[in-house]
Amino acid sequence: MPQTRHTERHFTAGETVRDIVIGMSDGLTVPFALAAGLTGAIDSAGIIVTAGLAEIAAGAIAMGLGGYLAAKSDAEHYAKEHEREKREVVEIPEEEMREVAQVFKSYGLSEKESAPVVEALSKHPQKWVDFMMRFELGLEKPDPKRALISAFTIAASYVAGGLIPLAPYIVSVYLKRVQVTTALLFSIMLTLVALFVFGFVKGRFTGTRPLRSALQTALIGSVAAGAAFLIARAIS
Amino acid sequence: MPQTRHTERHFTAGETVRDIVIGMSDGLTVPFALAAGLTGAIDSAGIIVTAGLAEIAAGAIAMGLGGYLAAKSDAEHYAKEHEREKREVVEIPEEEMREVAQVFKSYGLSEKESAPVVEALSKHPQKWVDFMMRFELGLEKPDPKRALISAFTIAASYVAGGLIPLAPYIVSVYLKRVQVTTALLFSIMLTLVALFVFGFVKGRFTGTRPLRSALQTALIGSVAAGAAFLIARAIS
Repeated sequence: MPQTRHTERHFTAGETVRDIVIGMSDGLTVPFALAAGLTGAIDSAGIIVTAGLAEIAAGAIAMGLGGYLAAKSDAEHYAKEHEREKREVVEIPEEEMREVAQVFKSYGLSEKESAPVVEALSKHPQKWVDFMMRFELGLEKPDPKRALISAFTIAASYVAGGLIPLAPYIVSVYLKRVQVTTALLFSIMLTLVALFVFGFVKGRFTGTRPLRSALQTALIGSVAAGAAFLIARAIS
Repeated sequence: MPQTRHTERHFTAGETVRDIVIGMSDGLTVPFALAAGLTGAIDSAGIIVTAGLAEIAAGAIAMGLGGYLAAKSDAEHYAKEHEREKREVVEIPEEEMREVAQVFKSYGLSEKESAPVVEALSKHPQKWVDFMMRFELGLEKPDPKRALISAFTIAASYVAGGLIPLAPYIVSVYLKRVQVTTALLFSIMLTLVALFVFGFVKGRFTGTRPLRSALQTALIGSVAAGAAFLIARAIS
């Protein structure tokens, strides 16, 4: 999902917030929509709870494990490219210096103008490699410890988000006499409030106006739930 | 989801492939796991198909619409920051020149060494702003037309991926005499093959070894489906 890239602000709190946002966005939306959709077709809170919990487990694992393995691949890709650049600044320094000049050329600088920087970089091989990684290849050094924490944060946020729309159905299974449509009504109210609050807080962190972010988040949940409801009703 | 950032390779085919990968990864995994999970608890292919299609609709909309709005926010954030940098290079050029020198300082260059480039950049205000956007703020110019295409590509890939594990259940609803466990068996075989092929092709595009990518993708699907199955069976 496209997130704004703040290369200069790589503090850990920011990444944790990002992971919570990723997990909870989908966690609040998809189980909510699934439960609402099934209510349009099935008159059993028990089945809806079963489907909802199965979905939460599947979604949390798909996002968490998927994210973990993708981060691992990214880290290996970075290490491989880093090794290659390290070798190249030693073996073919002239070629690499031409590549640095090329980066500056794309910003309107002549070779003469960029020459002093190219020269200076070539005297600090380690910094030179870092420069190439970021400015030529556009790669950032991934934190090897992040992958696992990130995976758990995303998965836990998905579960936490998913249990909110499901809660009224779970309660109705225990109370027995409650109708599924009543559970749906409570689920809609509860989830819309949660989406709104979540969207508002998310907006503050991502730089979108909070109220607009809140409305957008609630809109996505509502459209997804509405579509699921119509489809389930149409085929049942 | 963390994707490798290839700043220097921004051709459209690459972005379309990335969108297909994003949509299909989840589309193949979550509906598969949900259907498998429900088979552990419910003996009705009809309900499983209903739940599966509701999930596909919900997931496709959550991913597509969510991605669209996130891309829109990114584009606005970029435009806002671009305006600010444009104003700053005119109003406080000395400050901005210090910031350029600071970028180079983090790569071990002294102010004297970076001075010619700082000087040269300050003569091309437009390129200077571009330089600040990418190298100081780490932001890349988003393509305004991408958001909508990207949203549809992700949503369509989710639907295409999700229909594969569901196909045997749909067939079994029409054939009527087929047991859900038979549908599950065919769904597992079909989806594992699809995950394997998809993972292999994905590996070729993302730079991970294809065989390893294939095995990882199949693993995520299997773990998610296994967990969903166990949870659904435990509570039903």
